[in-house]
Amino acid sequence: MRYAVVGSGAVGGLYGGMLSRGGQDVHFLLRSDFDHVAQHGLRIDSVNGDFVLPKPNIYRRAQDMPCCDVVIVALKSTNNAMLADTLPHLVGEGGVVLTLQNGLDVEADSVAAVPGHGVLGGCCFLCSNKVGPGHIHHLDYGRIVFGGYEFAGRPEEIRDIGQRIVAEMTAAGIDVQWTDDLAAARWRKLMWNVPFNGLSVVLNASTDAIIGCLASRGLADRIIREVYQGAALCGVSIEESAIEKTMRHTETMVPYDSSMRLDYLHGRPMEVEAIFGSPLRAVAERLTQLAAETSEKLPHPMPSVRMLCEQLQFLDSRPAAASNLNG
Amino acid sequence: MRYAVVGSGAVGGLYGGMLSRGGQDVHFLLRSDFDHVAQHGLRIDSVNGDFVLPKPNIYRRAQDMPCCDVVIVALKSTNNAMLADTLPHLVGEGGVVLTLQNGLDVEADSVAAVPGHGVLGGCCFLCSNKVGPGHIHHLDYGRIVFGGYEFAGRPEEIRDIGQRIVAEMTAAGIDVQWTDDLAAARWRKLMWNVPFNGLSVVLNASTDAIIGCLASRGLADRIIREVYQGAALCGVSIEESAIEKTMRHTETMVPYDSSMRLDYLHGRPMEVEAIFGSPLRAVAERLTQLAAETSEKLPHPMPSVRMLCEQLQFLDSRPAAASNLNG
Repeated sequence: MRYAVVGSGAVGGLYGGMLSRGGQDVHFLLRSDFDHVAQHGLRIDSVNGDFVLPKPNIYRRAQDMPCCDVVIVALKSTNNAMLADTLPHLVGEGGVVLTLQNGLDVEADSVAAVPGHGVLGGCCFLCSNKVGPGHIHHLDYGRIVFGGYEFAGRPEEIRDIGQRIVAEMTAAGIDVQWTDDLAAARWRKLMWNVPFNGLSVVLNASTDAIIGCLASRGLADRIIREVYQGAALCGVSIEESAIEKTMRHTETMVPYDSSMRLDYLHGRPMEVEAIFGSPLRAVAERLTQLAAETSEKLPHPMPSVRMLCEQLQFLDSRPAAASNLNG
Repeated sequence: MRYAVVGSGAVGGLYGGMLSRGGQDVHFLLRSDFDHVAQHGLRIDSVNGDFVLPKPNIYRRAQDMPCCDVVIVALKSTNNAMLADTLPHLVGEGGVVLTLQNGLDVEADSVAAVPGHGVLGGCCFLCSNKVGPGHIHHLDYGRIVFGGYEFAGRPEEIRDIGQRIVAEMTAAGIDVQWTDDLAAARWRKLMWNVPFNGLSVVLNASTDAIIGCLASRGLADRIIREVYQGAALCGVSIEESAIEKTMRHTETMVPYDSSMRLDYLHGRPMEVEAIFGSPLRAVAERLTQLAAETSEKLPHPMPSVRMLCEQLQFLDSRPAAASNLNG
């Protein structure tokens, strides 16, 4: 299949690079990094082995790119506004979008951009940062779990494409898994993103520091449990052991600056809406619905998440200069 | 009456200075500022008029000071450990301690240091900072509300001393008021200190910025309400209008860096225990008591306060260098 990658940063650069190295036909849409990559190629320093793509297929504009079978959207969700103008140029007949983005319901923008096409959503469990133009540093983990979000009335066909993506990614050395329950995968990912992205910004600390202090560790643990409860309220069933597993994974992880922390330190917009606003809204809507059905008012299951969201909204609203000062 | 001032910073320097200017017999215990004040005097830049005490009575050691009728303790509560060695030298026969400190039950250390003596507790509603050695900058407000904490079996006598303090402070131009309900005054003060000290550190922002953003303003408002509920649970009755009044006061206040924020930015210990730990513990004890009495488990009325406390404990535990970096 032919692949396009929109957003060639920590996630898109790594996976697109691996597919390309594995012999797949991959086309990258670049903006600010175009000149650098044209000269020096795409460089990936990975815990699984470093490599460079000296001459990847790169483009400045979507309209110059070929139609593709799979368009990987690995933008920050704060840039989703560009999808409406971009995706229609890239998705070929019968082609699908695969969003590798953080947060809940981030696929909705892709669905709106190319109605009638299948949209798959994927969660990436990895530690990876873009450390310079066209230069990715992949530190740890790497699994993609993806599933169907919008089947466009052709579930069998979309699932088949999903299976082909699994096969081609696996052949390229990517640790990838199909799921029939994307919502559960999303919420499971939120169980990490919400506490550790959020606290790493508000406490100005990497994951090992948060885990290493009794007070913040206790807080992180409570936030993980709140997200678990939020998922349950929304009818998403996650095994309870995921709570402890999330904490254990973080303990054994390399000291890591979350993407949200890096965004904040560099004065870039943070994915507050996708990671915090969207799940909070889903829970609030479910609470309203339940209150209407049972006329019983349940307590909000995610008070700490709400507070963390408000703190991040404040920090996100400050001018970049102040953010840098704070970093 | 003869006064001693222990802790000649933003609070002790201001009020001790005003008493001294007003003709009272005031004796200051100084540490690091001794040499500077000996040379240059005590300088107070106040919204109500600047003044300098060129030759205040200053001492390096408590044992060199005369016995006093009123010992004003205006230390940061994080330095309360020194009271046990200090107060016995200063409190004369029938003398009292007046603690002008933030937090709940901060008087307990003074009671333990001079058992048998009366201890008064005071809340200061003012914006004042120490901006250099022996140099206080008083920006706004200035009221002291104080009352009895430990009557040492002689309530009438202690109240009389309280009235004399009111009279002498008033004569010195201090806005001061006696209260028969110190607990209510303490909790009312916490309604400001908890949200605005706490958020100013965690969000790295002054009060006007916190008030100016919808998300953080909503959070501050919720925290104020939680403290109000905590007080009610502890049997302390505060008029409900105090909630709105706290917010309105902060709006009309000059942009202000809380003492906790300044401590944090300068890498000094923060008063997390007095302002957050102590009221949280009081509420937890009351909940346990109620649960035993009624076998009904009430929800914790201060979840946001608890979270803010954990965040501050994390930040307080970080090395000073990291704190400064964050500032």
